[in-house]
Amino acid sequence: MIRHTVVFRLKHLSSSVAEMVFLRAASELASIPGVERFECLRQVSAKNPFSFGLSMEFADAATYQRYSYHPDHLRFVQERWLPEVVEFMEIDYIPHEVSLAPPSPVYFQGPQTPALTKASS
Amino acid sequence: MIRHTVVFRLKHLSSSVAEMVFLRAASELASIPGVERFECLRQVSAKNPFSFGLSMEFADAATYQRYSYHPDHLRFVQERWLPEVVEFMEIDYIPHEVSLAPPSPVYFQGPQTPALTKASS
Repeated sequence: MIRHTVVFRLKHLSSSVAEMVFLRAASELASIPGVERFECLRQVSAKNPFSFGLSMEFADAATYQRYSYHPDHLRFVQERWLPEVVEFMEIDYIPHEVSLAPPSPVYFQGPQTPALTKASS
Repeated sequence: MIRHTVVFRLKHLSSSVAEMVFLRAASELASIPGVERFECLRQVSAKNPFSFGLSMEFADAATYQRYSYHPDHLRFVQERWLPEVVEFMEIDYIPHEVSLAPPSPVYFQGPQTPALTKASS
């Protein structure tokens, strides 16, 4: 599973019709084959400059790539995204399994003690 | 629902024990009351500088705030986050309902035609 997300800010006024029309067009990306769990999100943290997000999942990298090159996606980028988005960041996630076993002790060994050599006598 | 996410980069080498130990400590945040759908994620896009993400959901803003001030969270921030995270961005989402109805035509009207006034005669 790959989760593709993009967080962005539009040039439109908040709650404007232009904003609504853009988000509606963006939501149509959900119908491109391979797109799963599509979400249109409002970004609400004051700790970044973005106001909206899109999130979607793909079964694998090949499906994600087919989406990226799908004509409906390319048209959306040309006709809506490039003219209307002021700034954005793409963030893509895959699950990360966190090991719950204690790390193998071998990793915590310090430098090996040098082999004792007989002092020359 | 509020989805709190943070995308970040550690000072540790990739796949190092220090990285694993950090991520394991981060995953223990999942046990703080109110945390739902906790995920530890690997960030895989080349279009940003981050390498991991955490995602979790809260029922509402009050639950999110209780998490933020929970002693286990504050301790994690002091003891692990501040010393080990090089850069990060917090992104918080709420669902955004996209209206599917056509916009009311009133919004598309141009400036009102000034009322016709009788020419003084």
